[in-house]
Amino acid sequence: MAAKVRIGAELFCAADLRQALDAARQDGLDFACSPLSHPRNARDARGVSERRAAPETRSDLALTCGEWSRLIVGTASAWPRLDASCAQQRRDGEAALTRELEWASHLSLAAVLLPPLPADVYPVARRLQETFQRATSWQAWVRCRLVSREEEARRREDPSSTGDVADPWLRWDRVRRLCDHSAALCVALELTETLPSVDAARRWRGEPLKCVLVPYALFRTNEAGFPVLPKAHQDLLASLAKLEPQLCLTGVPTHPRQSYVSYLRHLIASRAPVMDEAAIAERPYRDYLQAPLQPLADNLEANTYETFERDPVKYARYEEAVKKFLGERTSAVVVVAGAGRGPLVAAVLRAASDRCNVKVHAVEKNANAIVTLRHRASTEDAWRGRVEVHQSDMRRWAPPCPIDCVVSELLGSFGDNELSPECLEPVERWTSTSIPQNYESFLQPISCARLWFDARRANTGLPAGPPAVGACIGAPPPDRGLETPFVVKLHNFAPLSAVQPAFRFDHPASEKSLERYCALEFPVAVDCTVHGLAGYFESELYDGVMISINPATFSTGMFSWFPLFLPFSRPVFVAAGSSLEVRLWRRREGDRVWYEWAVVGPDVLPVHNPGGRSCAMRL
Amino acid sequence: MAAKVRIGAELFCAADLRQALDAARQDGLDFACSPLSHPRNARDARGVSERRAAPETRSDLALTCGEWSRLIVGTASAWPRLDASCAQQRRDGEAALTRELEWASHLSLAAVLLPPLPADVYPVARRLQETFQRATSWQAWVRCRLVSREEEARRREDPSSTGDVADPWLRWDRVRRLCDHSAALCVALELTETLPSVDAARRWRGEPLKCVLVPYALFRTNEAGFPVLPKAHQDLLASLAKLEPQLCLTGVPTHPRQSYVSYLRHLIASRAPVMDEAAIAERPYRDYLQAPLQPLADNLEANTYETFERDPVKYARYEEAVKKFLGERTSAVVVVAGAGRGPLVAAVLRAASDRCNVKVHAVEKNANAIVTLRHRASTEDAWRGRVEVHQSDMRRWAPPCPIDCVVSELLGSFGDNELSPECLEPVERWTSTSIPQNYESFLQPISCARLWFDARRANTGLPAGPPAVGACIGAPPPDRGLETPFVVKLHNFAPLSAVQPAFRFDHPASEKSLERYCALEFPVAVDCTVHGLAGYFESELYDGVMISINPATFSTGMFSWFPLFLPFSRPVFVAAGSSLEVRLWRRREGDRVWYEWAVVGPDVLPVHNPGGRSCAMRL
Repeated sequence: MAAKVRIGAELFCAADLRQALDAARQDGLDFACSPLSHPRNARDARGVSERRAAPETRSDLALTCGEWSRLIVGTASAWPRLDASCAQQRRDGEAALTRELEWASHLSLAAVLLPPLPADVYPVARRLQETFQRATSWQAWVRCRLVSREEEARRREDPSSTGDVADPWLRWDRVRRLCDHSAALCVALELTETLPSVDAARRWRGEPLKCVLVPYALFRTNEAGFPVLPKAHQDLLASLAKLEPQLCLTGVPTHPRQSYVSYLRHLIASRAPVMDEAAIAERPYRDYLQAPLQPLADNLEANTYETFERDPVKYARYEEAVKKFLGERTSAVVVVAGAGRGPLVAAVLRAASDRCNVKVHAVEKNANAIVTLRHRASTEDAWRGRVEVHQSDMRRWAPPCPIDCVVSELLGSFGDNELSPECLEPVERWTSTSIPQNYESFLQPISCARLWFDARRANTGLPAGPPAVGACIGAPPPDRGLETPFVVKLHNFAPLSAVQPAFRFDHPASEKSLERYCALEFPVAVDCTVHGLAGYFESELYDGVMISINPATFSTGMFSWFPLFLPFSRPVFVAAGSSLEVRLWRRREGDRVWYEWAVVGPDVLPVHNPGGRSCAMRL
Repeated sequence: MAAKVRIGAELFCAADLRQALDAARQDGLDFACSPLSHPRNARDARGVSERRAAPETRSDLALTCGEWSRLIVGTASAWPRLDASCAQQRRDGEAALTRELEWASHLSLAAVLLPPLPADVYPVARRLQETFQRATSWQAWVRCRLVSREEEARRREDPSSTGDVADPWLRWDRVRRLCDHSAALCVALELTETLPSVDAARRWRGEPLKCVLVPYALFRTNEAGFPVLPKAHQDLLASLAKLEPQLCLTGVPTHPRQSYVSYLRHLIASRAPVMDEAAIAERPYRDYLQAPLQPLADNLEANTYETFERDPVKYARYEEAVKKFLGERTSAVVVVAGAGRGPLVAAVLRAASDRCNVKVHAVEKNANAIVTLRHRASTEDAWRGRVEVHQSDMRRWAPPCPIDCVVSELLGSFGDNELSPECLEPVERWTSTSIPQNYESFLQPISCARLWFDARRANTGLPAGPPAVGACIGAPPPDRGLETPFVVKLHNFAPLSAVQPAFRFDHPASEKSLERYCALEFPVAVDCTVHGLAGYFESELYDGVMISINPATFSTGMFSWFPLFLPFSRPVFVAAGSSLEVRLWRRREGDRVWYEWAVVGPDVLPVHNPGGRSCAMRL
């Protein structure tokens, strides 16, 4: 089901680029990496043509423009002189790099493969950041070598021996910061003979991974005489393949090139996760930021109802919960608060079956859903005579008789974020039994460079509070997208610490106020950059019957909720062995409820969304 | 010359506010600090009137609106419950604070004096940041206690014993970060019995210091029976007084209040620095951000010429330098490149006097200045027959005869930032002797909260490069004011490390390229927040004759140059004993020259002004 993986290979000094490309295509390759400068020039300090009449690189007529951009990744020369101590050498090195990058733009290449970052990353980063200010067609793929477990251990024991920036991830992290998290800056991850620890490898899953470089030298020859990767490399590659990078073979093959390509295709295909119906449905939503629903303020559409009603797990759990509640009762009056098009009503009726004489009051404010409810109440056998439909906001509805139980599904990805606490607060006057009985939200720091970039771009945000005035004059407007919680199917992300509980709500309420505050401290095992927090919830529907999107207790198969993403106004670096400290508030004023959050360690960031200025939920 | 210092005093439980104010005025006081809530309410958990019918505080009719805002600073109650572990207590505490702040807005007070920050600053900071989103008339004065040398030492020895946030400056720093450096957040610094170290005290000089709290208890009784401050406190107060804070007496007086007020007025007046003419002229420019001149691209106005020609030091040094060059010569041909209205021509003629037969070619591109030059050449005795005026850009001018020396004054606050190197590059063809012979720029990290705030607001910046496109789509526009070097008479600032050299230019040039790069590491002695770099220059005019605005070698009395201020895109915290690491580039492309700068340690910030996108100097 996954898109066919694109596989390429490095070409060296192909005398005739078209011939070399034809050969590559015959070997099953989709693209080729070709040097931007003739290697003779790359070795030369200047790389510019002033010192010779011969052209500095091959003609752009070697391929059509379409071929250049579809089939060729330009390989930049190594930059030995960009960190030279001699100023003139540095300038020559920079001029040569600039020339290559301009050439890549001239050819409209889609990507430029940059060499591994030097220890002194700053001149390189400055050059790239200046380049990104202009129109560039291409992505910069920064070649990042995986570091072996042994190297990691060596560095931990004696950090001074190599300097902390010897870690390619740290160099990458610095460059992307210096380049202000440009979307044009991507990772080409190079597999190495010995692989890193799980934590260190996982870190790359949050990065914009566009390419995995697979050296021919990593392959072994199997009994049948074909090249194969060692088991650990197979596993890592299969795991990285979920992010759908392109693959690129590097170095010098010892078998026919075709056999490597076939092997990689077979490996990726055979290890691809089986896509069930839910996975296929969710696929387009991967890393797609959505504003959380506001079902209280807005009416849901048929489309939305239909999607959620299909959940194979949620309503079964509700049915189980209601069954437990009914127990040995022979009759019961149940209110379904926020009945929508009736899935919970149906679950209650199924739970009661013939054993219990159940009366269901279906309360719903959306006039469009009422149409469906009335149709079902009059046409479905199980409903007839047992279901009474009321068009009303549950907060203002008065039950016509004593109530045994209120069933509702008002939970958001973060539990309370669709205002279930506020909706059920007045309902508690009718009965002390609520399904759900409680819900709790959870948080976890994650790295997700691409999502963060998208959130920064999503500057429009949700309906905001009154415009900031007075003392705020002079402060720039906030990046509203970085003060807005999003719902998103997290995919290109790396969790960085264990999930921890945030807010809990019980029904009946254990405390009067629906405002909340929590202080959390997340230890991290490796140096990392946190882009924000992932939010989840667990809910006890009744007496041990749970639904959960917390990864630790996930209700397998349930697809009604994607996680929440709370971005940080800027990514926060956290060193191995230290902790990310955050504060989170749930606030209410008038008809608005909102979250504010603050990063307070190791860095201290401005409070996010003060006064709900960028986003709030409307009561 | 300094404005009269405003002195106030705390009032406690004045039964009749107007009477108390009248008494205060009779004692020579300018304002009073009065509690926002009746102390009975402040001690109460709720501070809101729901639990009693009596009003929670005195009536707003006690004073006129004008009196409230001119004469009263509102004192907020202590916030014992804002960091309580019980959620309900926290909420009650926050509600009480909110009520007080709303009351301060209702009265249009100019300032609210907040109590010392609690160890858990986060709930307070959140509350303030939310408040600053709305229209507030008042400044928040955060009461910050000075920490004694002994406390400092204790904390250094055993940081764990008190937690690093026991330092009031650290708490202040966290709150201001959480409040996104709001201009409404200011410092009320409380003098203490034993004073801090020089480094720790100096740190406050970069903060928005609006008030110094002086407890009556600090005073001693002198032989004449009057209250006086100990010598160390006198010195510190006199030094802080340069920032012109208001003073506020706190606690309970043991002498008549009037005697404290008279003493403080006398102390401040007697210790105020003597204002010479230059100091008086510079006074309005204190902390006033100016775009650097672009004399190459723009023509200076008469006003500007007149101001700079008044410098009592600069032209004397030029005269001395020219005299040294002329030495025993009996004749010489001197070009004044960029003659303006002729002050350098006059200096050359004075240096030559009658001993040397000097011929001066005055080259100037500004047609308006040419008018003055021609007038002077034909009317001034010393000039007649010795000065030839040429209207031309010096870069395109050809001398009519062999030249012995070129004299120019093209230096900016940062040496090369008015493009002296580019202007003098073609001039070097005429002669190998240039006055100045060389110049070098210097940098120093500084704390300057107010300047940084103003720079952030100065979003318009200077003419910028082409608009960012392509890969930059999605990145928010930069705060151009934070990517722009400013010229400014630094006043409310604290230097945080020793000055270090950056770029050097020699004439004749020692290297071909006029681009530059430097990497600097500034160690700091105390925890601090760096808002940017101060830039200075030194220049050797000729053979040891120097001019300098580097504080270490300053040419006393010279006022032609204020320092440069290179802001950071966000303030950077640097821990005591560690270093701030920066990189600075001087770049040129086409007719544009610009600086780029990057903070690379301890935090890594995006490169400032990549490609000169926010500001550049035009050739």
